[in-house]
Amino acid sequence: MGGGLKRIAILGSTGSIGQQTLEVARVFRDKLSVVGLGAGSNTNLLASQVEEFQPRMVSFQGSKTALQRSLSSGRASSPRLVSLEEMACHPEIDLVVIATAGKAGLAPTLAAIRSRKEVALANKEVLVMAGAIVMAEAKKHGVKIRPVDSEHSAIWQCLKGEQKKRVARLLLTASGGPFWRYPAKKLEAITPEQALNHPTWKMGRKVTVDSATLMNKGMEVIEAHWLFGMPYNRISVVVHTESIVHSMVQFADGSIKAQLSRPDMRLPIQYALVYPDRHFNPQLPIMEWAKTMALNFEPPDLDRFPCLRLAREAGEKGETYPAVLCAADEVAVEMFLAHRIGLLDIARLVEDTLEHHRGVGRPSLGEILKADAWARGYAEKWRSR
Amino acid sequence: MGGGLKRIAILGSTGSIGQQTLEVARVFRDKLSVVGLGAGSNTNLLASQVEEFQPRMVSFQGSKTALQRSLSSGRASSPRLVSLEEMACHPEIDLVVIATAGKAGLAPTLAAIRSRKEVALANKEVLVMAGAIVMAEAKKHGVKIRPVDSEHSAIWQCLKGEQKKRVARLLLTASGGPFWRYPAKKLEAITPEQALNHPTWKMGRKVTVDSATLMNKGMEVIEAHWLFGMPYNRISVVVHTESIVHSMVQFADGSIKAQLSRPDMRLPIQYALVYPDRHFNPQLPIMEWAKTMALNFEPPDLDRFPCLRLAREAGEKGETYPAVLCAADEVAVEMFLAHRIGLLDIARLVEDTLEHHRGVGRPSLGEILKADAWARGYAEKWRSR
Repeated sequence: MGGGLKRIAILGSTGSIGQQTLEVARVFRDKLSVVGLGAGSNTNLLASQVEEFQPRMVSFQGSKTALQRSLSSGRASSPRLVSLEEMACHPEIDLVVIATAGKAGLAPTLAAIRSRKEVALANKEVLVMAGAIVMAEAKKHGVKIRPVDSEHSAIWQCLKGEQKKRVARLLLTASGGPFWRYPAKKLEAITPEQALNHPTWKMGRKVTVDSATLMNKGMEVIEAHWLFGMPYNRISVVVHTESIVHSMVQFADGSIKAQLSRPDMRLPIQYALVYPDRHFNPQLPIMEWAKTMALNFEPPDLDRFPCLRLAREAGEKGETYPAVLCAADEVAVEMFLAHRIGLLDIARLVEDTLEHHRGVGRPSLGEILKADAWARGYAEKWRSR
Repeated sequence: MGGGLKRIAILGSTGSIGQQTLEVARVFRDKLSVVGLGAGSNTNLLASQVEEFQPRMVSFQGSKTALQRSLSSGRASSPRLVSLEEMACHPEIDLVVIATAGKAGLAPTLAAIRSRKEVALANKEVLVMAGAIVMAEAKKHGVKIRPVDSEHSAIWQCLKGEQKKRVARLLLTASGGPFWRYPAKKLEAITPEQALNHPTWKMGRKVTVDSATLMNKGMEVIEAHWLFGMPYNRISVVVHTESIVHSMVQFADGSIKAQLSRPDMRLPIQYALVYPDRHFNPQLPIMEWAKTMALNFEPPDLDRFPCLRLAREAGEKGETYPAVLCAADEVAVEMFLAHRIGLLDIARLVEDTLEHHRGVGRPSLGEILKADAWARGYAEKWRSR
């Protein structure tokens, strides 16, 4: 920070993470200046964000005319309309928050890295699809990617001041989602409405369903592999239904560090924005120790939640398999939300797509996107048996 | 470490911490050289330690003749006999482990600090009795005291890489001791044999009884105050019966870091010896996450365990009160172990002694020792009503 005002761009400002990033920026107006906002199609929300934060740049995938109309009232100068990539490497920006969904974050992340911006990454698919490319570019340009996921933020916090060579194991915690205690039979009949009702975290629809299948946790294993350079056999998943311990690091001497807080995404978002500092934020919940509290831990069940296994296998195989996993899962979740397939079909569809994929080693970005397109085509034609 | 062999002295080598320090030194013969051993009166154990580690210096409070006799077999050159203070500031020593009991550690700790040694401190009374003096000397000589207590080691580990000004609260965990679930009535009839049977930690007799009364935790609050420069109103105690989370630090942003491990004193001992590094030690237990585990937290009960309140009050009052607390508690525990008073009388005796003490502000070491002597005299004459 250097004491000055950090100029930030938020790509995906109307999504769940984007909105919460703005909540943090609102609290720290003396430290963070919102210079760019990028959104998909939510005209009204973007317009109100622009009114409030008056960014110099806006990126919008929807109708520009509709946005201009929404903005017309009261404002002297409209923000400049740019592309996500333009914004990500703009000289007036210090830190780029990648809060887009799916592969939309890929090109802007690379653009931000190549311009040596600070990058706060919330878009899972960026590292899952193209971890090798993104991390190689980050290394080349001396950029340390700041994770926004609560799990990776926890690990990042636990690693502070520690030597990487003394890390023995990463322990990613998983809430288990809303169906953790459900027997396999009941999982078959889950409706989208049930799946969207997450017990501990307030998140977007796609992530919420991925949490219910544990696909989200599987993708986080792949992300952790790339972010912290840790082999898969030294990344464990531990189910912790209370979502208080956000993840842990086990060191060579057997000592474990854990990071805890009430579940609230604004904490890891804030940490990524003001790192390495920490600031009091009156909006963040404080843990209460004056009451009795139990924190429970148990191993994950890969039989009832095969997505976790599928993601780990795709990660270990590498090549274009993780990109295919992402694409197939995105299609499958959409089909599930449209009542076209059941919750357990998501894993079946993804597994079937992975089995039919012919992986490409050391893929270029073009090859990754081609694998993505192939997987979407395959998955969309998939029918439950 | 600088890659070389660290030369260590262990004051109190025949006690529980001393023995476990030697177990660690035995594993890391390539990193740690035991140059000095100091013990009270356990001739046979000290002799066998000397045989094994061949230190150049030995300090012994018992019969020198008996020690020489025990050592006579097989060894060419006997170690030089020195005082604890001489050993603590000897030029051939890099790090001094203060594992003595009671006020015996006070003078050697100050001697080690003034000689700019690395100091690993396991002797609680040193900081409880003379925290202001010890910390002022440590600051003056640029010495960072390395805590050996599992709780303070946990806090020290959680603070690694973090800014002190961003610490909001220290959360000391307490096992609650063997009687945590006992109703007040049953506490009255506890025998020394029951009190010496601690559920999670293997420790010396005095510390074990102090754990049963929570006096130990109260003293640790005072230690934490001095070690980490934290006001008492920002140090909380949380009862955690499993003794897995060894303590926690809450930061300004609400994020909490915790340090976890199976309870084994060799881990914090090793950390203090090889800090800032961490090394694999095959003898240390590794946490298992493949099984179900519950970690429970609850607030302490100051009614059933008044020693915790007494210690905190003595700490807050400062002056010579913490020294009086220590002295009265030492006498009280001895009386309890001798079946002369009941477990609950320990708090009564300590409280009564504190109430009759006339504190001395900004006390010198002499004034502290005078208060100690007064408190012992007073306590020894105390009779349960």
